[in-house]
Amino acid sequence: MDFSLTPKLEELRDRTRSFIRDQVIPFEKDLRQNEHGPGEDLRKELMELARKAGLLTPHASVEMGGLGLSHIEKAIVFEEAGYSSLGPTAMNIHAPDEGNIHLLEEIASPEQKERWLRPLVAGKIRSCFAMTEPAPGAGSDPSMLMTTAIKDGEDYLINGQKWFITGADGADFVIIMARGEDGSATMFLSDMNAPGIELVRNMDAMDSCFVGGHGVLQFTNLHVSSKQILGELGKGFKNAQVRLAPARLTHCMRWLGQAQRAQDIAIAYVKKREAFGKILGEHEGVGFMLADNDMDLQTSRLNIWHTAWLLDQGERCNFESSRAKVICSEAEWRVVDRCVQMLGGQGVTGETVLMKIFKDMRGFRIYDGPSEVHRWSMARKMIANKELK
Amino acid sequence: MDFSLTPKLEELRDRTRSFIRDQVIPFEKDLRQNEHGPGEDLRKELMELARKAGLLTPHASVEMGGLGLSHIEKAIVFEEAGYSSLGPTAMNIHAPDEGNIHLLEEIASPEQKERWLRPLVAGKIRSCFAMTEPAPGAGSDPSMLMTTAIKDGEDYLINGQKWFITGADGADFVIIMARGEDGSATMFLSDMNAPGIELVRNMDAMDSCFVGGHGVLQFTNLHVSSKQILGELGKGFKNAQVRLAPARLTHCMRWLGQAQRAQDIAIAYVKKREAFGKILGEHEGVGFMLADNDMDLQTSRLNIWHTAWLLDQGERCNFESSRAKVICSEAEWRVVDRCVQMLGGQGVTGETVLMKIFKDMRGFRIYDGPSEVHRWSMARKMIANKELK
Amino acid sequence: MDFSLTPKLEELRDRTRSFIRDQVIPFEKDLRQNEHGPGEDLRKELMELARKAGLLTPHASVEMGGLGLSHIEKAIVFEEAGYSSLGPTAMNIHAPDEGNIHLLEEIASPEQKERWLRPLVAGKIRSCFAMTEPAPGAGSDPSMLMTTAIKDGEDYLINGQKWFITGADGADFVIIMARGEDGSATMFLSDMNAPGIELVRNMDAMDSCFVGGHGVLQFTNLHVSSKQILGELGKGFKNAQVRLAPARLTHCMRWLGQAQRAQDIAIAYVKKREAFGKILGEHEGVGFMLADNDMDLQTSRLNIWHTAWLLDQGERCNFESSRAKVICSEAEWRVVDRCVQMLGGQGVTGETVLMKIFKDMRGFRIYDGPSEVHRWSMARKMIANKELK
Amino acid sequence: MDFSLTPKLEELRDRTRSFIRDQVIPFEKDLRQNEHGPGEDLRKELMELARKAGLLTPHASVEMGGLGLSHIEKAIVFEEAGYSSLGPTAMNIHAPDEGNIHLLEEIASPEQKERWLRPLVAGKIRSCFAMTEPAPGAGSDPSMLMTTAIKDGEDYLINGQKWFITGADGADFVIIMARGEDGSATMFLSDMNAPGIELVRNMDAMDSCFVGGHGVLQFTNLHVSSKQILGELGKGFKNAQVRLAPARLTHCMRWLGQAQRAQDIAIAYVKKREAFGKILGEHEGVGFMLADNDMDLQTSRLNIWHTAWLLDQGERCNFESSRAKVICSEAEWRVVDRCVQMLGGQGVTGETVLMKIFKDMRGFRIYDGPSEVHRWSMARKMIANKELK
Repeated sequence: MDFSLTPKLEELRDRTRSFIRDQVIPFEKDLRQNEHGPGEDLRKELMELARKAGLLTPHASVEMGGLGLSHIEKAIVFEEAGYSSLGPTAMNIHAPDEGNIHLLEEIASPEQKERWLRPLVAGKIRSCFAMTEPAPGAGSDPSMLMTTAIKDGEDYLINGQKWFITGADGADFVIIMARGEDGSATMFLSDMNAPGIELVRNMDAMDSCFVGGHGVLQFTNLHVSSKQILGELGKGFKNAQVRLAPARLTHCMRWLGQAQRAQDIAIAYVKKREAFGKILGEHEGVGFMLADNDMDLQTSRLNIWHTAWLLDQGERCNFESSRAKVICSEAEWRVVDRCVQMLGGQGVTGETVLMKIFKDMRGFRIYDGPSEVHRWSMARKMIANKELK
Repeated sequence: MDFSLTPKLEELRDRTRSFIRDQVIPFEKDLRQNEHGPGEDLRKELMELARKAGLLTPHASVEMGGLGLSHIEKAIVFEEAGYSSLGPTAMNIHAPDEGNIHLLEEIASPEQKERWLRPLVAGKIRSCFAMTEPAPGAGSDPSMLMTTAIKDGEDYLINGQKWFITGADGADFVIIMARGEDGSATMFLSDMNAPGIELVRNMDAMDSCFVGGHGVLQFTNLHVSSKQILGELGKGFKNAQVRLAPARLTHCMRWLGQAQRAQDIAIAYVKKREAFGKILGEHEGVGFMLADNDMDLQTSRLNIWHTAWLLDQGERCNFESSRAKVICSEAEWRVVDRCVQMLGGQGVTGETVLMKIFKDMRGFRIYDGPSEVHRWSMARKMIANKELK
Repeated sequence: MDFSLTPKLEELRDRTRSFIRDQVIPFEKDLRQNEHGPGEDLRKELMELARKAGLLTPHASVEMGGLGLSHIEKAIVFEEAGYSSLGPTAMNIHAPDEGNIHLLEEIASPEQKERWLRPLVAGKIRSCFAMTEPAPGAGSDPSMLMTTAIKDGEDYLINGQKWFITGADGADFVIIMARGEDGSATMFLSDMNAPGIELVRNMDAMDSCFVGGHGVLQFTNLHVSSKQILGELGKGFKNAQVRLAPARLTHCMRWLGQAQRAQDIAIAYVKKREAFGKILGEHEGVGFMLADNDMDLQTSRLNIWHTAWLLDQGERCNFESSRAKVICSEAEWRVVDRCVQMLGGQGVTGETVLMKIFKDMRGFRIYDGPSEVHRWSMARKMIANKELK
Repeated sequence: MDFSLTPKLEELRDRTRSFIRDQVIPFEKDLRQNEHGPGEDLRKELMELARKAGLLTPHASVEMGGLGLSHIEKAIVFEEAGYSSLGPTAMNIHAPDEGNIHLLEEIASPEQKERWLRPLVAGKIRSCFAMTEPAPGAGSDPSMLMTTAIKDGEDYLINGQKWFITGADGADFVIIMARGEDGSATMFLSDMNAPGIELVRNMDAMDSCFVGGHGVLQFTNLHVSSKQILGELGKGFKNAQVRLAPARLTHCMRWLGQAQRAQDIAIAYVKKREAFGKILGEHEGVGFMLADNDMDLQTSRLNIWHTAWLLDQGERCNFESSRAKVICSEAEWRVVDRCVQMLGGQGVTGETVLMKIFKDMRGFRIYDGPSEVHRWSMARKMIANKELK
């Protein structure tokens, strides 16, 4: 067992840290952000800085233009990137592009890669992943999928509605999960400007950290050819697994950075602000919150590292990524909530970035599977006596 | 012991309930609300409806134009009012006016009452309470008060800065806590348009349910005469106690209404939305959240009732109102957080009013004394062996 | 609404309090207690003291020799009795006799009352309630009942095994739940010395507060006549409901007394013991535990009072007694656990009675329905839209 | 970063696992255990088995007769040993001998090692560590030390009382912390049969897993020579640090084994026992407990591994071992408490070893520093801006 980092990874971590603190954080008050997320030109400007720092799309393969980071390397780098809510946008490792890049690397055809993956890695285009549907469609239970892809000659016609589609507004292409006549699911790639795709509206979300926000998409007789099938026909859910476990984990990493940021803000505050004759941090009640935060941060970090290492060993980690997702999303949330409490009134106002972190993070206990679904999925595997690590 | 309500109170409760559901809730999507709170003309329109329903300012004395509700009666009525975030505004029982009315009833001079209280009860003017200051001034520790009121002939000159002043923007008068040359604190009344009062800015707050939001006020050589002293000179903290315990409790009541609203939204949702072969509510994991919510709601309600009854018996309830404040602010928050979880993505978007309730309520664990200060205050009394009820 | 007590009830409360502190607590170190519970002669001696104090079996009807307490009156008196683990034994209000007395009062025939109830109220005999069975029999799911009562001429033959039968060892009679050939359940009364009843063993339980401990009973062709049917044939579950809700609540009351005792021990300790320059109670971390305990105690108390009042109004309280049971069993446990923590090493050794309280109380979150079963039962009623109070 | 184990360590882990399951667990019902702990002849018999398995005192240096395990190796092996409450006794890695061996290896003189350490490693003798004192002496605050060691010619006379001295009954030697005339603290070694040492009594403790239980020791003019000073004169606290961090961590390891045992018992139970139409494990409410347990176990394990690795790098780990102690003692306790809940009545009776685990483990949140002291110690370091890992 060895918790040390290679000198190369230490250098990359330190470089990312400096980049975020010196070049990204100063943009946090930039007005090119709205209630949905950072604007496109802010994104472009930040990505240009990342490119110069050699930090753009680091998780993509070297062949496609990235640094080819392993999961453990991502764990270290993405936490640093997450220290600013603009960091993942700057480095092109934000959701859903980060997960889509991983998915396309694994299962896209060479033609699909050239057309969609290469410019995505280069930060020239954006993408979205259209899975979730309004009731009675697919929510936390993917088997309730209602969007259809019906054979039409050699091609397919897609009809249905999707919502909570992160980054839909402004995306250049979309990955669509749809159901065939035989009931099986398939993923399709489509340019967003294809006839038959409509962005109905952008949802009014509590978070504002994802470029493009969360959109509602309507597909009306969207024409897709068989070349637009991502992976295999009828293997949509199986192929999507490739994306699932790693994407859960990268959320944990980025949000860990945000939680650490919250803790640093709180520590700075309680070391200065006085009440009842001493600085807040010298009050046991406050000190206990600092300690609990440290425990929650460390617990999140260790679970991320361990699961990332297992992924690097080639494990599927369905169980372990569920576990890490629940642990991190709940522990990181507790950290941020305690920080709000320590800052008092300043925690619930825009005097620091803490309020934004609080509002941005709440959804993490819900998306990529709410805690309840993961707990239940874990339990079923435990009852079924599967060997777990 | 008797938990029954008088027929008169039952009628008032039912009338309030109908008023809120039939006449107030339809305004919840009214666009005359901004990021700080309901706008002044929306407020006026709603108050007119409350006046017609005989429900305007019901806690004020009959002499001043209210219904002269006891604390227990307030407990029943304010919970109903709180069912809509606009309810307290409509009925003129929102913070800080509600507490200011109570304070003025108790300690204002007859002249002060005619000048400021009567129009406040009638809903013609608004008020604010200027206590909290930026570091290193008075936050949760009131003894750190830095705003000064220096004798200037027969009058006083007030200088200092206040923030988190709820309702400051648009208020007609303000109650100012300031420190004299002898170190003692005094409350002063002043019209807001007096020279020397500046609304520096409105803070960017997570909540948006208080008319006027939360402002930063600067006092620069504000002139006040001795007729503007509220209560006695040098007895500012002691006199403010009159406001404290009841004001804490009315917050608990109103937020209980919001928490009940959240629960009702969640119940409706989980009875309809299906996943994994049955409605969400039939999943134990969801059912447990419903049950926990019911326990937290009931616990809050009983603690409010008991403390209100003690206040009606003439008790000061410093201990008991701290206890009720911690219990309610934490239990009601847990309810809302669980409801967000049950609604999934819809809990963190504006698809229902739940997200607004979530954002509006977080501050309640902080203002009127954060949980930590109340716990500590309770503990000191317990150690000091005071008889507690 | 009125939280005041009648002068008569205040007198009874104070008399019980004095009785427990002056006459019962001195027996707590009496050696006539073993790992299962207080011994029979200690019980007799204590009951004699209660009789003299006019406090024996106060919940029984006046006709049967008790004081005919209402549920609210029980709430006040039983909490006081519970202050010592020997209190309920002394006053003949311990489980299961207390609940059995209530059940017999409600549904036993006049002959059954004379034969079994009157001497039970007088403290001359003891009883037990035989419901729970080893797997695959009836545990938290009563419908899995396996013990059979098969018609044999005019009589019945009972066969089966029961365990966790509190007070079985030394009981004079037993109430047996058994299933008939048609699948319906019936309750039967039988003397314990009837042929066909065997006390297989006394279980090695964590608690030691129930007279007679918890036994395993074997019924082998136990002969019972139709006069031994308690309530109606085939209505066993329905009739047992009469016992259920009130019995849950009296557990809450007695354990509240134990939790209050724990808190009083902890307060006394933290006011004396010093560490790091001040008494423990002046450390915020400890003070917060005191405050949390007070909140949990008060919450338990109010929920007991409210549910007792509803029972006094003639409500069934299936929902409300589940709620009170979960709230109290969990809140009272948290109190005791925190007290153990405050006492440090002395909390986990026999230096005070606290360790015994800790060991005695853990089972309360399990018996009379584990928290999980009650939460689920509550949720189903909430989903079914029943009107709840 | 690398979470893999060397083949040698895997073999040792598997050998330990087999040893515990095949050879130690069968002794768990052996009657040579009393309310204080395993008896001396049971211990001897178990140790003989461990010796044959090559598993006796594996953490001692090779020179002294052990396997010279690193901290990481201990993490793996001690968890396996802890799977049975008799495992640490069998392998001579129980408290306090395990920590005393570590301490003596680090700071004892060659003569002291030959006299006390070598036979201790061989399992021929037992030891105890006499630090904690009754009020107003040293409890969680070591600076309150009252036992004195007063110069008497070339020697010292020790006077004072100690309690909670684990293993005192039957120990062959003791390490005593005492205060000199200058106020500084020193550790002394003494045979237990020296005149002036009296075992006043064995305490009535909730746990029964430590050989010899927890004793009260009285020192009356105990004569010790300067050769009996352990480490340096006046450096008692500093030298004891050598023992502290690692000893905390080995507790975490052993109790992790017990918690894992509890979970395995619970899983086996809920896979078999049915209620409400399906096995318990298929109820979400139960499944969530299984998942939460898995998360708590994994979190404990990762924190142990990480801290052990830091210790192996030569770090002092005062902060990190506090953190691991709080995380593990609380997480492992939650696991055991949930298992009790899942087993229902069988969880609070001796039907399985679970009840013993529950009673044995509660003290762990208290000894080696209660959670509150560690949280506070962590907070102070965080406020002091120390670099933490």
